[in-house]
Amino acid sequence: MRTVGSVLWPKLRVLQVYGANTGVGKTIFSSILCRAFQKRLPAVNYLKPVSTGPLDEADDHHIATLDTGVNSKCLFQFNDPVSPHLAVRSAGRPITDATVLAAVYDELSKQANGQDGISIVETAGGVLSPTPSGSSQADLYRPLRLPTLLVGDHNLGGIGTTISAWESLHMRGYDVHSLALFSEDRGEDRYGNFAYLRDYFQDRNVTAFSIPPPPPRNVSVEEDHHAMRKYYDQSAEHRDVLAFTERFLESHDKRIAEIRSMPEEADKAIWHPFLQHTERSKENIMAWDSAYGDHFQSYTTRQETDQSSPADSELSLLKPAFDGSASWWTQGLGHGNPTLALTAAHAAGRYGHVMFGGSIHKPALDLAQTLIEKSGNSRLKKVFYSDNGSTGMEVAVKMGLRASLIRYKPENPRDLDIRILGLKNSYHGDTIGTMDCSEPSIFNEKVEWYKGRGIWLDFPTVKMREGRWLVEPFEGAPFNTKYFHSLSDLFDFHQRHRDWEAYKRYLRETISDAVKENPNIRLGSLILEPILLGAGGMLFADPLYQRALVEVAREFYAEETTTTTPATTTTNGTAGDWTSIPIIFDEVFTGLYRLGRFSAASFLGVQPDIVVNAKLLTGGLLPLCTTTASDAIFAAFLSTDKTDALLHGHSYTAHPVGCSVANESLKQLQNLERGGAWESFKEDWSPRAFSYGVSYQGSEHAWSMWSWRFVSSLSHRKSVDNVFALGSVLAISLKDPAGSGYASTAATGLRDQLLKGVEGGVDNGVIHSRVLGNVLYLMAAMTTTEETISGVEERVLEAIGG
Amino acid sequence: MRTVGSVLWPKLRVLQVYGANTGVGKTIFSSILCRAFQKRLPAVNYLKPVSTGPLDEADDHHIATLDTGVNSKCLFQFNDPVSPHLAVRSAGRPITDATVLAAVYDELSKQANGQDGISIVETAGGVLSPTPSGSSQADLYRPLRLPTLLVGDHNLGGIGTTISAWESLHMRGYDVHSLALFSEDRGEDRYGNFAYLRDYFQDRNVTAFSIPPPPPRNVSVEEDHHAMRKYYDQSAEHRDVLAFTERFLESHDKRIAEIRSMPEEADKAIWHPFLQHTERSKENIMAWDSAYGDHFQSYTTRQETDQSSPADSELSLLKPAFDGSASWWTQGLGHGNPTLALTAAHAAGRYGHVMFGGSIHKPALDLAQTLIEKSGNSRLKKVFYSDNGSTGMEVAVKMGLRASLIRYKPENPRDLDIRILGLKNSYHGDTIGTMDCSEPSIFNEKVEWYKGRGIWLDFPTVKMREGRWLVEPFEGAPFNTKYFHSLSDLFDFHQRHRDWEAYKRYLRETISDAVKENPNIRLGSLILEPILLGAGGMLFADPLYQRALVEVAREFYAEETTTTTPATTTTNGTAGDWTSIPIIFDEVFTGLYRLGRFSAASFLGVQPDIVVNAKLLTGGLLPLCTTTASDAIFAAFLSTDKTDALLHGHSYTAHPVGCSVANESLKQLQNLERGGAWESFKEDWSPRAFSYGVSYQGSEHAWSMWSWRFVSSLSHRKSVDNVFALGSVLAISLKDPAGSGYASTAATGLRDQLLKGVEGGVDNGVIHSRVLGNVLYLMAAMTTTEETISGVEERVLEAIGG
Repeated sequence: MRTVGSVLWPKLRVLQVYGANTGVGKTIFSSILCRAFQKRLPAVNYLKPVSTGPLDEADDHHIATLDTGVNSKCLFQFNDPVSPHLAVRSAGRPITDATVLAAVYDELSKQANGQDGISIVETAGGVLSPTPSGSSQADLYRPLRLPTLLVGDHNLGGIGTTISAWESLHMRGYDVHSLALFSEDRGEDRYGNFAYLRDYFQDRNVTAFSIPPPPPRNVSVEEDHHAMRKYYDQSAEHRDVLAFTERFLESHDKRIAEIRSMPEEADKAIWHPFLQHTERSKENIMAWDSAYGDHFQSYTTRQETDQSSPADSELSLLKPAFDGSASWWTQGLGHGNPTLALTAAHAAGRYGHVMFGGSIHKPALDLAQTLIEKSGNSRLKKVFYSDNGSTGMEVAVKMGLRASLIRYKPENPRDLDIRILGLKNSYHGDTIGTMDCSEPSIFNEKVEWYKGRGIWLDFPTVKMREGRWLVEPFEGAPFNTKYFHSLSDLFDFHQRHRDWEAYKRYLRETISDAVKENPNIRLGSLILEPILLGAGGMLFADPLYQRALVEVAREFYAEETTTTTPATTTTNGTAGDWTSIPIIFDEVFTGLYRLGRFSAASFLGVQPDIVVNAKLLTGGLLPLCTTTASDAIFAAFLSTDKTDALLHGHSYTAHPVGCSVANESLKQLQNLERGGAWESFKEDWSPRAFSYGVSYQGSEHAWSMWSWRFVSSLSHRKSVDNVFALGSVLAISLKDPAGSGYASTAATGLRDQLLKGVEGGVDNGVIHSRVLGNVLYLMAAMTTTEETISGVEERVLEAIGG
Repeated sequence: MRTVGSVLWPKLRVLQVYGANTGVGKTIFSSILCRAFQKRLPAVNYLKPVSTGPLDEADDHHIATLDTGVNSKCLFQFNDPVSPHLAVRSAGRPITDATVLAAVYDELSKQANGQDGISIVETAGGVLSPTPSGSSQADLYRPLRLPTLLVGDHNLGGIGTTISAWESLHMRGYDVHSLALFSEDRGEDRYGNFAYLRDYFQDRNVTAFSIPPPPPRNVSVEEDHHAMRKYYDQSAEHRDVLAFTERFLESHDKRIAEIRSMPEEADKAIWHPFLQHTERSKENIMAWDSAYGDHFQSYTTRQETDQSSPADSELSLLKPAFDGSASWWTQGLGHGNPTLALTAAHAAGRYGHVMFGGSIHKPALDLAQTLIEKSGNSRLKKVFYSDNGSTGMEVAVKMGLRASLIRYKPENPRDLDIRILGLKNSYHGDTIGTMDCSEPSIFNEKVEWYKGRGIWLDFPTVKMREGRWLVEPFEGAPFNTKYFHSLSDLFDFHQRHRDWEAYKRYLRETISDAVKENPNIRLGSLILEPILLGAGGMLFADPLYQRALVEVAREFYAEETTTTTPATTTTNGTAGDWTSIPIIFDEVFTGLYRLGRFSAASFLGVQPDIVVNAKLLTGGLLPLCTTTASDAIFAAFLSTDKTDALLHGHSYTAHPVGCSVANESLKQLQNLERGGAWESFKEDWSPRAFSYGVSYQGSEHAWSMWSWRFVSSLSHRKSVDNVFALGSVLAISLKDPAGSGYASTAATGLRDQLLKGVEGGVDNGVIHSRVLGNVLYLMAAMTTTEETISGVEERVLEAIGG
């Protein structure tokens, strides 16, 4: 696993030089700065990763000719003096961004090994000029996120191009340290560029400085060299250049001090979620300096005390850490995604937030229409917006309870004991109302106002153990363990007709018994997390059992309730109505491609009446939640009385930034699906690929981004009880003699091992993961590559041992 | 009141031409497009709002010379051929953005009056080149938000400058319709700019086209004109130019069709918050096309049926509507704020979302430190993040209940009836747990699981009636109505010593009686919305009464509880500890300058143990909430048992985009305060300004953005019962013989009147406001100008009548 991340070496400073346009003097400024830094630092390096044009005109050559003692290097040189994306074509020598990036990283790492100095890295053309691969300069180098000097445009029109270039860098997450600019006409600021830009950037924490431009070209090369040498000598002594070098050196030290102090400062000022703070110390708080793609750029104080050799002091303070929880299950399109950033900015620029009471804006309308249309559920017709999974589930519960109560027409509703029907180990959010929907557990039982209001059922779980897929019954269940040739077979409900009958019989009986316990009990809704129960322990429920439960729930009060409104009784009926009690699917975690499909309900082949989506909805950028309901549910709130309405709504309901980012995210996710981005994963999990020789007849089979070989291999390891993978989710249940559950610490050892890295070393990324009791889970973004996944797999197998 | 908003005339199309840089051919493209559109439309106008350089070289002159039949105009012309911000200086003729904008708006409106045609508006320089005032082109024209043609840069380096220019437009909320570009060297695309940009923008819904550049200049003017005429003739017939004109005309019609259909589409797909949908129809759904500053750019189907004369069909389909609810109390820094948009984008580009479990990032740390430091409350030490006011209050309640229960050490906590102490008409959010903190009301009593768990007290309210400030007691209260010379006098607690004693006596007795009703009752926390009770009816509580309540609550169980932990008993003590029960301030609405101060608690002069902030926290852009607590509250969750922790946390907890935007918003708000932006409002409300001759001795007096004269005038109107204003909030209670409360419709008439506008007319903006029963409230952003406020005031007085 090789990950190029952001770098921050204590001794080797790095400065990246970008230009607001081509020909604004990047190389000349780089030369001057090399000279100026030579007065202050033992080692000065100049790196031109990609250069086009004849060798003797190349920037590194120029630097080498004029600056003595500078270690000057060009990594990729092309003769054609055009944009790199054209130069590689005429040279017939394509290179990828990853190749350039790795070469730069390696070269800098080599320089960092022992040097007290600076490396100046000069880009080609302007900020968004093409790279050899055709991407932009700023996007290519973004993973390194180096402190940046922007060389501004001193020409007529340069004010605008300079600010736009800065905005392009800024919104890609760069820190632009300073702006440098030639004064026009050797001192006269005719266009006023410098004065304007200096004031403009002062307000934005970017210091600007200007120096006179180089002398005009002479006829002889020798005269040129002489004049330039003189110019460089003078410029390197320029007051503002010296001030810049000082500021930059200080800012490097300040940045290091800041990142080193962040864990301690956080320990003082932050109340962390889901943490027993007696276990917190500055040693175990991770500081995220930035993030890109699948990785955090992380710092921990512990990494410094862990250093085993003096050479480690030359390691970068920032380490790439694979975001193994997909940032609490939200990440789908990679951290620092520039398209999502620009989409957010466009919505902010077009609307800001616009209140949603009785109004509409395009991003909210588009998103609602997409969710309704793509759900594959013909019942779903109306979208209600809120801010997170928990509030979205509160809305769903309010919808469900009202709809069912209207059907029961109880004389005194306040006397009833209205319960949620659900599975044990369910979890639907942290607000007290949604907590009440879950059985008493570690999450809620110490919440003073918690009152479990449900009937919660045991359920059989899907696991792979020693290479075999099985459905394991719960204790005391009237079913046996079932084995399956492949994961897809388990979803072949047609073949599992007898399981289905048995499940329905059991469920009918169990629910009837539970309801009879108290004459005031009424079922208000069935709430399910389809397929995977997340926070409750990352449990894979037998999908056929969940389907049977939906069917039994729909027939439960059917006799009493169908009389009040016409209703269809088929599970997959397209009618907008429901029988018995509303079926609510909490797809906050499992929906929107987390398991490989837009709708998690589609795995069960049922059409819930209410579906809640969040997390991946915004691709992993910011909070937004939707609760989508059928017209029949919607109708339960219609009357001539305002107080019968669903009187719920948060201030930022349907905020345009969130809705716009969600529209773009769903578009990107659907493009990944349609563009075949996951084909090789699907191929790997194709039932045909298995040795059993069974040909799978279903439509789309179940698949995972985690390789079949890896999952199977894990399931044979001594410390592993069982494992499963689906979509981007992998869960490893470790054996714990003390029992499973949230309080188990069986998985923390593995977690800590992955966080340390198995071996020390410069480019040795680590894996940041979360545990739920004895379960360690890993989750990828939907854009994570096979290569990255396989690197993580290797590391996990190494860490977990035999 | 004159508001320049976005325009969309059915018959007059408008196209704005921006350049990626100076000298890329904006005028030439504009000329060609004028010619091309002349073939399709009866009227073609060309408008150059600001031009620099000698008149005969001016762009409009150029157009007029070459294009016959084009109505060509320049509004502001300066002779010096430099950037407008310098040209106005040398001409000694400064002009504001508002002046330019109004002139453009007037000119276009004149053209729209009867014309079936197009107006092409050409900007000066590049996208972010300076305007006469020194702002940028894109910022100056943003309020009009015209469909845009971007002329790309065909020179070397032009790929990067073109994309950056587009990004600058895009993140200011512009819709860039197409990109136009000269092919280089008369057809040869040596730099590959066009091919690259065409593909790049195709993915971004921007169609690009290119045409050959104009012929080189000749010696004689005549020859030049001849060559250019020929060039224009040919170019106007160019296949890609014709295709562009067609696309643009279609897009105009499509945009109109889309905005016209939005209300109906919303009626189908959206479940609106807080709405009885039997009252909804496509006629009363407002469509927001965009928003800027204080205004929505709105469309309603009703405005078309309301048209009283045929001339109205020439009105813009978009009307500016003053955002009179500050978008449900969130708006602080203006819609479409470009700095907030860029800040959001930077955080998205640097981090995306990064999970917050046991970790830290700079935006979250900075925000926590700012909130702790600026609160002026030395108790507050730890910040917990969530997504909205409701979830933040759930967190606060969990904190408060746990802290108090630990002190009581009950044998069996589940037997206790733990209550919130609070005021009647309080409201803390829509999730069921926070609903339980409020007395039964229209908002919650039909929520099946709602269970009010509180002791709620009556309270005296502050009002202005017939020009006099008074504190009105509740029914049956043992206090009389008190009158005050000024609003500030009411906050002079020193002078109100006897009221304070009376309040404390009353509160001690009332609370004791209430608690005695049931031996299992325990108080868990006091929750207050300081000063203003928002959703419960926009009620202004006597601040001295709230202060007395805090003091009484802190002494209530003091004897029993102070034994367990050392505690200070002073209300303003700097110790991090508390007595009796935790004091929670819900400042979701009232905090962060909504009432003119960073902390609303500071009006009461008390230091709560827990404070919740949201709404203005992000300046009005996106959801984020903080619950800030004292170390003593934090300590209540410390133990060696993980299950004692506050097991709460949403997926997007402390999302970097939200935290970054909040940091920038608080900075801007503090800058407004420090920069004296509100001085004239303060001066208006200075007690010295009153005729009573009483000199106010307090530190900072209470003030409002709504003028004292206006408030006083309102309070004398026949239909008005009373009125108050504080900070940016104004509330008008209308007389309703049928009684007040949420179900009253007394205020809806005024609301509808304001929404229609008092008179018809082209630039006649309307006011969008919300009502709470018989109360119509108005709220400004903290950046709203005196001029805008006074325009709204005028309109309100006109609408409310005598």
